[in-house]
Amino acid sequence: MFAGLTAPDAAVAADARARQNRLTKPPGSLGRLEDLSVWVASCQGVCPPRQFVRPRVVVFAGDHGVTAAGVSAFPAAVTGQMIANFDAGGAAINVLAELAGATVRVADVAVDCDEPLSPAIGAYKVRRGSGNIAVEDALTAAEAAAAVAAGARIADEEVDSGADLLIAGDMGIGNTTPATTLIAAVTGTEPVAAVGRGTGIDDEGWMRKTAAVRDALYRARNVTGDPLGLLRVCGGADLAAMAGFCAQAAVRRTPVLLDGVVVTAAALLADRLAPGARAWWQAGHRSTEPAHALALAHLELEPIVDLRMRLGEGTGAAVALPVVRAAVAALTSMATFDEAGISEESS
Amino acid sequence: MFAGLTAPDAAVAADARARQNRLTKPPGSLGRLEDLSVWVASCQGVCPPRQFVRPRVVVFAGDHGVTAAGVSAFPAAVTGQMIANFDAGGAAINVLAELAGATVRVADVAVDCDEPLSPAIGAYKVRRGSGNIAVEDALTAAEAAAAVAAGARIADEEVDSGADLLIAGDMGIGNTTPATTLIAAVTGTEPVAAVGRGTGIDDEGWMRKTAAVRDALYRARNVTGDPLGLLRVCGGADLAAMAGFCAQAAVRRTPVLLDGVVVTAAALLADRLAPGARAWWQAGHRSTEPAHALALAHLELEPIVDLRMRLGEGTGAAVALPVVRAAVAALTSMATFDEAGISEESS
Repeated sequence: MFAGLTAPDAAVAADARARQNRLTKPPGSLGRLEDLSVWVASCQGVCPPRQFVRPRVVVFAGDHGVTAAGVSAFPAAVTGQMIANFDAGGAAINVLAELAGATVRVADVAVDCDEPLSPAIGAYKVRRGSGNIAVEDALTAAEAAAAVAAGARIADEEVDSGADLLIAGDMGIGNTTPATTLIAAVTGTEPVAAVGRGTGIDDEGWMRKTAAVRDALYRARNVTGDPLGLLRVCGGADLAAMAGFCAQAAVRRTPVLLDGVVVTAAALLADRLAPGARAWWQAGHRSTEPAHALALAHLELEPIVDLRMRLGEGTGAAVALPVVRAAVAALTSMATFDEAGISEESS
Repeated sequence: MFAGLTAPDAAVAADARARQNRLTKPPGSLGRLEDLSVWVASCQGVCPPRQFVRPRVVVFAGDHGVTAAGVSAFPAAVTGQMIANFDAGGAAINVLAELAGATVRVADVAVDCDEPLSPAIGAYKVRRGSGNIAVEDALTAAEAAAAVAAGARIADEEVDSGADLLIAGDMGIGNTTPATTLIAAVTGTEPVAAVGRGTGIDDEGWMRKTAAVRDALYRARNVTGDPLGLLRVCGGADLAAMAGFCAQAAVRRTPVLLDGVVVTAAALLADRLAPGARAWWQAGHRSTEPAHALALAHLELEPIVDLRMRLGEGTGAAVALPVVRAAVAALTSMATFDEAGISEESS
């Protein structure tokens, strides 16, 4: 899988940088917006770039057996209830995506319920929940491969339907525990330095979560160099699907805005499954989870916004999307010094 | 002037905070967005708040005699040329404001040209340029008072025309020199710790700029406690107008997003002219100018975005506006736990 991965277009990036320097402003004065506009142009292979017309958020939902270890402030039943909330348009990601001009799709990959809310939402369901990683593997090898392939197929479907920017979101009570474990395993970090408060656990819950991460890391000690093995032993079907999604988006030359700690954990593995994929991604935001900052540093990605968000669902990326749109608009629509007849910098 | 300043509505703020805690997400998980939504509700006096329908950017343009000291990388003629660019819609603020759903007005307060580009743009013109603050006062006492009043009248006009959020922008070659001087004077900072690169000066230019700020600070040593005196001695007509604008917006109970170092320097003085006005402002962004961070800290304002921008014109605030819109949309449009039938946090 993920053969044929190419890099964004370096020649177009150079054109875009040169155009930035002809726009009616001091060179470099739009800061990060200039870098983002160059990245979008290089991903699209055209300068000036096109404004996004079909950004798409895919929320990957799954439950996690590790919730039995008391790692979350919310009961596991909330995962299914939130899918209904997404479907009704009442969740944060619905509201924030609409404001940013994006649409939302929900994929039930591993929710612990008898029937998915609808056939469409459950089209790529891998299993009911994932195993309790503190004591058992999250997935079988076949399930891990199926979940990665499911995420890749979802990316293909979206790109084939015209999506020109992709955002992965997560929904699943307990999912920051496997995400933190994956990040700790890849970055070689001690659990106490990686574990955060998730949806808002107290000190006792933090200790239970840290113990679960420590146990899962011990179980994963022989697969740290094997991305599929890590997803199988201490990940989950939703995380594996997000990894396949992020990797396949890169194969399809489609830019991705990463969200919080769960999506970025999956992205860490995706860049191992498809080396170089990270060139197609930007970090939408930095969450308050300590593991998120570790994963972003490992991927050498700088968050676009830093607003102390910790919700998931793709919300951090959705808030960052207007910044990327602003970057594109500036490069595309501003006048050049020549066009405006303005004196340039004295040299 | 600026009598009758009131505070945002604390009771509505409490209602908004309580509503945030009933929305379908872990309490606090939208981070800064929750704070911003509470602020907007308290400014509007209603919860849930209304989405902004007429955000307005006013770009205050002026020239500065201190450019004669070689403090800028661009010739002074660019100020007038850029006003034509704003009028033609080709500048960064035109593009970024449109994307954020805001409109732009330009006010020639002190451009060094014979005739304003149009009567509308020049309606509140105070003088041609401001004095070279390294060697003389920027304004007379009458001009300083007239400029503050002009900015206040512009705020009144915009609020009376339905503006529900105001952004001040700046345009003027050399204007970071008086802005830095004002900030250094108010915060008691040494010039070398406050002076930045502006539009992109080299080391020699930085030394000339630092010397000019030092000389202006010396001239201002007897007026540091007097906001009008500071604007007269080491400010400028554009800075005084921006101060009047920010103060009067607060009197009119209209929220303001501050932009970069020039606008924030004016805001420092505005909060002295109208104590308490800063409760009506948020900092749109943090620029790369060292004095900007000093001014924000003095006002106890935290920037919404930090993107290494240093252009002015209101561009940093325009990029922050969609984040404030997202905050409003979440508080207004998300479902509550009750509405969605979702289990709350275990307690």
